[in-house]
Amino acid sequence: MLLLSVKALTSENYELLSSYGIDVVTPDTITANQIADIMISYGWDNAIGEKILADPNAKLKWIQAQSAGVDYLPLSLLKARGITVTNASGLKALPIAQTVLSYILYFARGLNVYAMRKHWEPFTNQYLINELPVLIFGTGRIGKQIASHIKAFGGTVYGVNTSGRAVPGFDAVYPISNYQAGLAKARVVVDGLPGTADTADFFDTRFFEQVNQLFLFINIGRGTTLDQDALLSAIDDSRVKFAALDVTTPEPLPKNHPLFERHQILLTQHTSWGEHVNAGRTGGLFRLFEQNLTSFVNDGSFKQNVVNLDKGY
Amino acid sequence: MLLLSVKALTSENYELLSSYGIDVVTPDTITANQIADIMISYGWDNAIGEKILADPNAKLKWIQAQSAGVDYLPLSLLKARGITVTNASGLKALPIAQTVLSYILYFARGLNVYAMRKHWEPFTNQYLINELPVLIFGTGRIGKQIASHIKAFGGTVYGVNTSGRAVPGFDAVYPISNYQAGLAKARVVVDGLPGTADTADFFDTRFFEQVNQLFLFINIGRGTTLDQDALLSAIDDSRVKFAALDVTTPEPLPKNHPLFERHQILLTQHTSWGEHVNAGRTGGLFRLFEQNLTSFVNDGSFKQNVVNLDKGY
Repeated sequence: MLLLSVKALTSENYELLSSYGIDVVTPDTITANQIADIMISYGWDNAIGEKILADPNAKLKWIQAQSAGVDYLPLSLLKARGITVTNASGLKALPIAQTVLSYILYFARGLNVYAMRKHWEPFTNQYLINELPVLIFGTGRIGKQIASHIKAFGGTVYGVNTSGRAVPGFDAVYPISNYQAGLAKARVVVDGLPGTADTADFFDTRFFEQVNQLFLFINIGRGTTLDQDALLSAIDDSRVKFAALDVTTPEPLPKNHPLFERHQILLTQHTSWGEHVNAGRTGGLFRLFEQNLTSFVNDGSFKQNVVNLDKGY
Repeated sequence: MLLLSVKALTSENYELLSSYGIDVVTPDTITANQIADIMISYGWDNAIGEKILADPNAKLKWIQAQSAGVDYLPLSLLKARGITVTNASGLKALPIAQTVLSYILYFARGLNVYAMRKHWEPFTNQYLINELPVLIFGTGRIGKQIASHIKAFGGTVYGVNTSGRAVPGFDAVYPISNYQAGLAKARVVVDGLPGTADTADFFDTRFFEQVNQLFLFINIGRGTTLDQDALLSAIDDSRVKFAALDVTTPEPLPKNHPLFERHQILLTQHTSWGEHVNAGRTGGLFRLFEQNLTSFVNDGSFKQNVVNLDKGY
């Protein structure tokens, strides 16, 4: 069995793969006649990927994406070819959730004021986390991890998902068709939506017209889900007090972009995944990949993180 | 029974006191011949307090301080007079602990960098809370509340108290005579010491000489416990990377004070108590006071928050 490794592997990783009878090629070592033999792509390389998909004899069965969102993959084509995509959902749930908590506490505890203040002028208009109910769009691994942190602080957390099905750890979950019921109770909104055709500009002018005194809008989903001009207007109208965005459109943002120029907006430049132990954007990926490896080798099945190629997440 | 109320009371508070047969005077309404009759001082007013203590017939038995620290009270004199002091320890434990978590996450998640950054330059040298073990000097209510938040994030938290007695919620507790054993394992130090003769300048040059790569030094105890010049040197020598101080010497800090001028230092100007539900520095004090009221009225005893007048906390 041949595996194309787009991401660097350790010697331990190589040993483990070898114990499964898996040979490894990399974008540097691969030869033209190995293209069709690749069964597993660990990570995705656009150029090699195109060659694989153009080959009618390609044996590719499994792509382990290096990211939670897979909107950059040719999902319909992969479905037609019977290729399974597993994503990296959950990989960086912990660091992302800690960044979300850092955003909430930054504005709630007045650090946004004090970070800039170079003279004595106490600021006491501060909130506790339990004074700021949170509504999270997306109740997957990242949403659940955020919810668990909020609950640990004694806070209130609502969720939004497609069907409104209950999810452990949330005080209530609303269907996306009636997210307004949750929005009416929230002071903090977390955009954790995946980037799909359905979610493009989901948070638009009409969305922000419904909010009045939102304390904080957070985007840790995809930049495409937010109409940034609509957010800027809502900030300028004081319907939204603060915003913290990890993802933006475009990335990188050009210098002098309006998002840089509002003191109410904090930008963390798509680095909410940062940590030391599993350093790097895909640090820890192999551990996650490993959890599907036995069942895939045994019978071609998967235990977790399988992307629904119709839905795109 | 006469109560001097230095802090404002609501009509509900008055009703409750009345149900116990307690009459209320305030600094505005008190007359000279009532001074000796005061049995309870709810809050402390220096001018009236001096008159009470100067009166050999004073009936004062109980002072409910409006603060956790009581270093401003004449403790030896109060002891000689058999007056009990209860403090407000625990009153603001929750907001203070949330401010401590906001400090840790602010530096750990790189918000200190991003708050200032007005161009695209990703910063990924970020930590998870469980990558930064915390050592808390003081294992009382505030220390315990901080520890509980750290544990909820999966972090590691050590404590320091007088005897080294174990305290639930801490991974280990060290006696102050051997705090070095905890310091060796910590990346974050929280100074939560009370202001007493023993703790003056506890965190001095010798203390900071023992640290090498401390990530963050926090003071939410008393300004007097920290030699600020020693901290500034440690920051300038990179032995301490960042500092977050809620309390300082003096307060207010004068303009252009060196603490304002280090980008590595965050100052929250003695407002870590901020919240909305129990707004104000002493918001919630009556609820705490109430918990000793029944036993005091019944038999002169106290259930909680009694200050050891020898130790001063």
